[in-house]
Parts: sequence; structure tokens; C-alpha cells
Amino acid sequence: MRFLHTSDWHLGRIFHGVHLTDDQAHLLAQFIGLIDDIKPDAIVIAGDVYDRSVPPTEAVKLLDETLSQILMDYKTPVIMIAGNHDSPERLGFGSRLLARQGLHLTGLFDTSLQPVTIMDKHGPVHFVPVPFVEPPVVREKWGLADIANHDQAMAAIIHKATAIIPAGERKVLVGHAYLTGGEKSESERPLSIGGTDMIDFNHFDRFDYVALGHLHQPQSIGKPHIRYSGSLLKYSFSEVNHKKSITLVEMDDTGKTEIQSYSLTPRRDVRRIEGELNNVLRGPRQSESKEDYLLVSLLDTGAVLDAMGRLREVYPNVLHIERPHLSTGGELRGPASDHRKLSEKELFSSFFEQVTGETLTDEQGLVFSDTVEDLFRQKREVAS
Amino acid sequence: MRFLHTSDWHLGRIFHGVHLTDDQAHLLAQFIGLIDDIKPDAIVIAGDVYDRSVPPTEAVKLLDETLSQILMDYKTPVIMIAGNHDSPERLGFGSRLLARQGLHLTGLFDTSLQPVTIMDKHGPVHFVPVPFVEPPVVREKWGLADIANHDQAMAAIIHKATAIIPAGERKVLVGHAYLTGGEKSESERPLSIGGTDMIDFNHFDRFDYVALGHLHQPQSIGKPHIRYSGSLLKYSFSEVNHKKSITLVEMDDTGKTEIQSYSLTPRRDVRRIEGELNNVLRGPRQSESKEDYLLVSLLDTGAVLDAMGRLREVYPNVLHIERPHLSTGGELRGPASDHRKLSEKELFSSFFEQVTGETLTDEQGLVFSDTVEDLFRQKREVAS
Repeated sequence: MRFLHTSDWHLGRIFHGVHLTDDQAHLLAQFIGLIDDIKPDAIVIAGDVYDRSVPPTEAVKLLDETLSQILMDYKTPVIMIAGNHDSPERLGFGSRLLARQGLHLTGLFDTSLQPVTIMDKHGPVHFVPVPFVEPPVVREKWGLADIANHDQAMAAIIHKATAIIPAGERKVLVGHAYLTGGEKSESERPLSIGGTDMIDFNHFDRFDYVALGHLHQPQSIGKPHIRYSGSLLKYSFSEVNHKKSITLVEMDDTGKTEIQSYSLTPRRDVRRIEGELNNVLRGPRQSESKEDYLLVSLLDTGAVLDAMGRLREVYPNVLHIERPHLSTGGELRGPASDHRKLSEKELFSSFFEQVTGETLTDEQGLVFSDTVEDLFRQKREVAS
Repeated sequence: MRFLHTSDWHLGRIFHGVHLTDDQAHLLAQFIGLIDDIKPDAIVIAGDVYDRSVPPTEAVKLLDETLSQILMDYKTPVIMIAGNHDSPERLGFGSRLLARQGLHLTGLFDTSLQPVTIMDKHGPVHFVPVPFVEPPVVREKWGLADIANHDQAMAAIIHKATAIIPAGERKVLVGHAYLTGGEKSESERPLSIGGTDMIDFNHFDRFDYVALGHLHQPQSIGKPHIRYSGSLLKYSFSEVNHKKSITLVEMDDTGKTEIQSYSLTPRRDVRRIEGELNNVLRGPRQSESKEDYLLVSLLDTGAVLDAMGRLREVYPNVLHIERPHLSTGGELRGPASDHRKLSEKELFSSFFEQVTGETLTDEQGLVFSDTVEDLFRQKREVAS
């Protein structure tokens, strides 16, 4: 049995004002190419298929086209669950009819926990779809009063799910959850407030593979076969060092798994550049693309006019500029003495020190005084 | 060939603040019963399946359950198009996969106009799905510069659609449009502003049956076989006298059709009651249900305190109250003379006449004067 594990496509995501649908389509076309190469027995998509509960129509169209192609051209069954970003009802539309075409959608949490069973030459492999679900829903549905958090909810789900699978048969859990020890990034929406969203990886012991979604960094937790595939693309600047990939899982007749990662090439990378404006404006190194989505950290301490305009002449997709030296002063504070008693130069000197962390030099002080004097003279001339 | 024609389900509709999903589920359960009785060869749903482009999740669930039941339990193919209320992209999700299960959804207008062909013992019947489409889209897609309105767009569509169907074979058009001569009600959203949304029924001559959606009154236009099935329920008080139904079409080997209407029973009727409050409060006649959704037209001319509260004790689902005698005065107008020179009684008398159309009687005038005098006395006592 060989299957591809992916998650967190976040179709329809808007990143610093940019609609990423074209970037996502570019990646999914490569994903289809990978399916064509590898000919997997199944595909697992572990939630956050869309970026929000009512996705834009072009995201709906992209998902429709991608899934239709997988199912119709490659006849590869797909097991897909809703994540915390998806609307379970909307994602689940047509699920019973679509299951007959090999598209197994689980939107709403279903207490039957009926696995999707796919055969290989050694027998069945049971995929248990566990969409994102709030602990109170699990508590209500089963009348289990002691379920207070995600850890307890998952323990109960796993207990029920494994009970209906014949002993000794291979099983895979498909889930969307936050396991203790997992490395977060900035583009995941917390599953609950206050740290009760974390789940102990030991609960998953009885599964031969655990296909997880939610964390955007590809990673295994505790054991190699308890794994986050990571997101389709870098969805925040905290992910610039991630190496996004699709996971290929090969499972033998005993349930033992081997894992391989396949990297796809985004249309535009998400990168961070640091330097003084004049250096940054020299442009990309040979291996870098000027089309990438950039966060530029400008190290200049002085005034920089129209930084975004000038940067975009070289790098058209600069999305954000940081000025770290404009915040070294720490907390905002007023000048030491009563500002009404300070001269213009003393006031500016205090301001300059606060935002740059440096003292105004004599030369800078002179330029400031001259400028202010000029302004006052002009004002007097206009008034007279 | 026998098929059921329905349209304008408007799932998720909110009527005077009431979510109609339960009422719609009640009707659709009967619709399933009708399918069980009649065993049609196909079902046609001619648009406005949802009430809005992003329907509430319970409407999505209801449509999913209804269609799944029709397809899985009765194996009856469904031909469904988007109306002007539907989002074509959202409604069309999964359409290629679902078509293989017999669910033929057409969301976006597709220039191929590929018919859905269903066989009976006499041969094929071609159903041409024409979802609601704006004339500029048709003009753009085909580069036909002279398409300025719905009439010209439909003429072009019909020309193309009939060209690809072998001559002599039976054909049905499934459309969502406004045909000249059709009787409107208040719950249809105009297809365009300024009257250019109307289509000549003569364009449809070449079809053996035309299954239309948009107008909520069941009706044929021009010829018996060019027909609106009407909406699932009464969706405005302008429809109280409609008799909603599902149309059964029986087509013989030559394409000749016979039409029958099947009425379903809503959970609550939509009615209008007229009378003075005290008469209305006597309650429903034996054949009427007090649970119906009501517009009450109160004929009282005098003040009526807490009419809604008192009416709802008898009729819990009063949704709207009209006071026709409070608007007989026609346009709002000020008192004849300068109001600053009028006494309180003269001012009130003028106001009374304006809203009721009647002159203040001596007795009414006396009650008013006494009340005002009381108020002034109380005010003087408080001040002193």
C-alpha cells in the first residue's frame, strides 16, 4: 500500500493582500504530476482544505477541478476531512454520492467512525477519518461527561474507532489536531484558547500511520509514523525556512511504514531579505527570483523615502517592510523633562534617540536646526 | 418518459424573520413520497435551489439529504440548474463526479450545451440545461456583438443547443428565465433592471417541453408545454392565493406531453386575515389552522394596544400586521393652517383626520381634551 499524505491547502488564502489561488493552482498541477509519476493507491488530505468556511468561488472551482482530475483521470481514491478552517457542512455536501466515486469526504464528525477501507494484495487498510471537532461535541454526542479538552476527546474517539476494526488489521488515522511537541508557525489558527488544545501522541499507538493536518511545518511527533505533512505553501513569513513537501507513505503487509518527502516548486517563494535599502536595491543573487513574495527588513537608521515604491521596482512582490532600528527604543516614552520647556532641537533629539536608540550627532543637530530655521523664516515671510 | 418538474425551492429562505428550513424539509419529505408513488424516470429542478449564493449550512444539509435519497434510494436521475439566486460555482461543485451518479448539476453556463440524455423504450430524450446567465456573458463567450438582452441571449442559446441534437429526437429545455406574459409575485428577484429581462415564448417552439423556473406561480406560457412548475412554498404574502404544486410530465414516443399537477401540503399555510381585532381574535374557522403564517389586516380605525402580542396568543405565527385605515389619508401633509397657532385639540384633530380619514367626533374630542388637561395638571403639580 502506497499513499500520499497532504494537508492544509488553505485554498482561497489571502496573504498580505495577495490572492494565492494562482500559486495554489500551480502547486496542485505539480501534485497531479506527482500522482501521475507515483501512482499511489490512495490520497489523504488531512483538513484545512479551504482557508475559511465560505471560500471564494475560485477556490471552490480549483478544488473541484483538482479532485475531479484525481478521481476521473487517475481513479485514485481520496480520503479528505474538514479542518478547523473548513465549514464541515459545506465541505461535506454530496459526500454519500461522491463516496461511490471514490471521494470520501468527512465534514461533520460522525460518531459511527466508519473507516474507509482500501485493499492491497495483503488485505485491507482501514483509514479512520477524524475531522476537526470541538470537545463539547464529542461529550454531547456520546454522553461522556468527563471530556473537557481535545486530549480526552481524541482518546475517546480512538477508543471507539479501534474497537470496530478487526484486530490485527492495518489502520491509519486521518486527523486534524495539535499534538504536544509540534512546532507551530504564525499561520495556524489556535484550536482553543488557553493551551487545552494539545493532544498526547501516545494515544495514537495503535495506528500504523497517523496522517495529521494543522501544523504547517512537515514533521513527525514522537514517532516517525505520527506525522504532519505540512501545508501546501508557506502561508506566513514565519515559515520562510520551512521545506514544504508531500509525504509518500509505503506500508508493508505488517503495517510497517516507510516515509519519503516530495518537494514541489512554488510559482513564487516566500522569503525574507535583510539589509540597508541601497544594498537591497542591488537585486537578487543568481539563484534567487525577483518575483518571490518578500518581507524586507531595512536596517537603515535614517529617513527612507518611498521604500515600498523603490523596492517594488526591483522586487515587484514585496509584501511587507520591517524597520527593526525604528523600534529598538523599546516602549514609547515621553522626553525626560516637561516637553513644553524644551527647544525644537531638544525635542527632536529626544525623539531621534527614542526611535533609533542613538544620540543625535553634532552634524545631524546642525542640519535639523537649519531646517527648522528655514521653516520659521518662510512662515514669517508668508505672514508679513 | 415520465418526469417530475419542480423549481424555486429557495432553501434557506428567511420569511419575515422566520427560517423556513423546517417547512422546506416537511415539503421535501412529501416530494420524496411522491417519487416513491410515481417512480418517475427523471427529476428536473429548474433553478433557485437555494435562496442565496451562500446558503446557511442547514440548507446545504437539507439539499444534500434530499438529493442523496433520490439518487441512492430511488436511483432516479436529477437534472438541476442554477437560478439567479444560486452561486453557479458553489452549486456546481463536484458536478463531473456527481454526474456519474446520475446527479446532473449545471452551475456555470457551459457553451457546449451538452444535453443530459435519458432513454426510455422509445429512444433518447435530450434535456438541455440552461442555467441563469447574464446576456453579456453569452455575448462574450460566443463573440456575438448583437446580444443586448435576455431575449437575444436565449435565442442564441436555443439555436446552438438544437443544432447538436439529432433531428427528430425528443428534447426538453431546462431554464431559469422570465417569459413575456408570465405572472409575477413579490418574492422573485428581477433578472435585470428596466424590463429587458423578458423572453418571447416563441423561441422555445422546437422543444417538446420547456421546464422553467423563476416565476413562483405554477403556469404555462403561450402553450401548455412551456411551463413554470412554481415554487416549493408560498414565499411572500402576494402568493396567498397560489396553489403550489409539482408538475408531472408524461411524454409519448412523438414528444407529445400530458401534464398533471401534484399539490403537497405545507406544514403551515401562508394566509391573510382581514377584520377588526376583536373579530380576528375569535380564532380560526374549523378548516383553518391557527399555526399558519399570517398577515393580519386590522380594519379598526381607533387605537389598538399591543395588537401583535394579543394576536399571537391566538395565532402564534402572525408575521405582519397591516392597518389599512391608518393610511387612507394618502400623502402625509401638515395641518391646513400654521400649526404654531393651533390649540392642542385642533392639532390632534387634524392628525386624526389625516391618519384615519375621519373627523374627530365630539365625544372623542372631549376624551382628548380631558386627557391633555390631566397631563398639564400633573406637570404643574410636579413643578410646584
